[in-house]
Amino acid sequence: MRLIDEEALDDITLGSTVLGSGGGGDPYVGMLLARDAIRRFGAVRLASLAEVPDEANVVFVAGIGAPGVLIEKLPRAAEYERVLPELERFTGTSYDFVCPAEAGGLNAVTPFATAAARGLPVVDADGMGRAFPHLEMVTPTLYGGSSTPMVMVDEHGNTMFLESASNAWSEAYARAAVLASGANAAMALYPMTGAEAKQRLVRGALTLAQDLGRTIREARAAHASPVDAVLAKQNGVLLFTGKVEEVDRRNERGWTIGRAHLSGVDHDRGRTMTVHFQNENLAAERDGAVVATSPDLIMAMELDTGQPIPAEEIRYGYRVAVLGLPADEHWRTEAGIELAGPRRFGYEMDYRPVEEFAR
Amino acid sequence: MRLIDEEALDDITLGSTVLGSGGGGDPYVGMLLARDAIRRFGAVRLASLAEVPDEANVVFVAGIGAPGVLIEKLPRAAEYERVLPELERFTGTSYDFVCPAEAGGLNAVTPFATAAARGLPVVDADGMGRAFPHLEMVTPTLYGGSSTPMVMVDEHGNTMFLESASNAWSEAYARAAVLASGANAAMALYPMTGAEAKQRLVRGALTLAQDLGRTIREARAAHASPVDAVLAKQNGVLLFTGKVEEVDRRNERGWTIGRAHLSGVDHDRGRTMTVHFQNENLAAERDGAVVATSPDLIMAMELDTGQPIPAEEIRYGYRVAVLGLPADEHWRTEAGIELAGPRRFGYEMDYRPVEEFAR
Repeated sequence: MRLIDEEALDDITLGSTVLGSGGGGDPYVGMLLARDAIRRFGAVRLASLAEVPDEANVVFVAGIGAPGVLIEKLPRAAEYERVLPELERFTGTSYDFVCPAEAGGLNAVTPFATAAARGLPVVDADGMGRAFPHLEMVTPTLYGGSSTPMVMVDEHGNTMFLESASNAWSEAYARAAVLASGANAAMALYPMTGAEAKQRLVRGALTLAQDLGRTIREARAAHASPVDAVLAKQNGVLLFTGKVEEVDRRNERGWTIGRAHLSGVDHDRGRTMTVHFQNENLAAERDGAVVATSPDLIMAMELDTGQPIPAEEIRYGYRVAVLGLPADEHWRTEAGIELAGPRRFGYEMDYRPVEEFAR
Repeated sequence: MRLIDEEALDDITLGSTVLGSGGGGDPYVGMLLARDAIRRFGAVRLASLAEVPDEANVVFVAGIGAPGVLIEKLPRAAEYERVLPELERFTGTSYDFVCPAEAGGLNAVTPFATAAARGLPVVDADGMGRAFPHLEMVTPTLYGGSSTPMVMVDEHGNTMFLESASNAWSEAYARAAVLASGANAAMALYPMTGAEAKQRLVRGALTLAQDLGRTIREARAAHASPVDAVLAKQNGVLLFTGKVEEVDRRNERGWTIGRAHLSGVDHDRGRTMTVHFQNENLAAERDGAVVATSPDLIMAMELDTGQPIPAEEIRYGYRVAVLGLPADEHWRTEAGIELAGPRRFGYEMDYRPVEEFAR
């Protein structure tokens, strides 16, 4: 196990913005929460999956917020500290490791708040290798893993325990509850054994986030291109270089849904790109032809700074590179594409690996 | 304790339609559920509050449905049989008595399904003495009683446990969950001791429903006026006799909201009445002046048959008597009027006892 200190946390935070694929919530607010917990309770140990005993109890910790809430209001440490004891009280089981559900966005680092307060290690893995907008869109679902027993605690002091008939029902209940509460909430969910974690999770997801963050940081320091550095690190494809012309965006029951329209610059001059998003960027079309879809990652990075631009913030005038990064192999299966491919989000498109589209 | 057989159940069902005050869901579907349970498991004992030991554990059982669901689809016994063992598993407490939350409408009889399956008695009391549209609008709330720990089980096999910061939060969570599930659900909530039940509940609420049902049945058999019989039985006020001219009704996140406009017949010829409803009838104006408001009961009964007409079904052409019946004394307090008076529902009206309005 290695220790995650504040510098490591900074790199994970920056890298998780890339893995957010345009969504996942603002990692900065998660970082503030996690940093505060580390200052109060000390550095947190990061355990590789190999270091997790087969019989250990592992559980995801993640935050969920009503629309706009995470931006307007910081999540509070109290909910992240309370969520695990609540699950333990409910299940009569104690948990040995905390794990992020998604290494993309805010929830890459929220588990550190829980782990620091309890003195538990965080597992260097996640259930997505990116961010997705639905609670059931995690790799454990592909292996029959249940999201429940699950607990959700909100800022008002409400605690909801759930045992669901399916992970999609957990999503429906959790989403309804967070909209009703109008607040931030912390969840502990997908309890699993160490053996299940090894089979089902995306290995090394936090190290990947940290490496991506360091890559961007070092490229900036060397006055090199962060975009090129990320592409090289992740075998990514440069889908487009352009300027944001127009964004259609609406908020619908907790989701930020819309399209960003770009016109090309440099070698893409005269071409257009449309990026479709539902919290995360989910499909990209160049001159009307699909060039990338979920579950592969689609990420807009500001050309000059390499700063990843979330779908919630992209707007007229941004000059960006649009990158396509291969999804983890768990997703590039029939079950993975069915659970999180373009048709699952209502897009009449077929998935092909982003590097095949590029050829 | 006395036994509730099928004839008693029929009278309770009919009487609960009066106590429904225009809402509470269709008691007929609750009766089918309860009758089936009694046929399978035998008659259910009804215990007066005096027969409940102070240290006994008492809990409300009630159904909740997504809009339209209770009408289109019968509630299933399985949820009512499952709900109590689920609460027991969650709390580690066993319950000795089941009690209706509301003796008005469907939920007057749904607890019989739970009680029959478990061989438990039902308490001859409720938390409203009528029906109300919100989960927190029960007499235990007036005494600081908590709605949680609470459990809700839906038809899909989802089980939600809740510990809330307030009874209004329980309402928000339960309503959101039932809308998300799009199904019927059974709840066990407001666990309390026998001593608390004696202090907090509306005494004899099921006997009242049964008496009202028998009163209507006997009046019909004697070719007498069921309206007059109900008025005499309950010290009620005949607010209006008229014909329904127009109904404005909309469905809004689980509530049936609107107004029925009536024109007078007989001694009310030339006058008008407007009945305001939000699931239940909540206020009545005659010639523009308020003549009754919640928490008092406002009920439309068909002139010829004495059949109570729910707000959900009232429509052009019905000839009805509109009755005002005094609410239980629990509600005629400052706290009761604040929790369930007209302003709580957004009507700019002041509560006065219906018999005072009439003078």
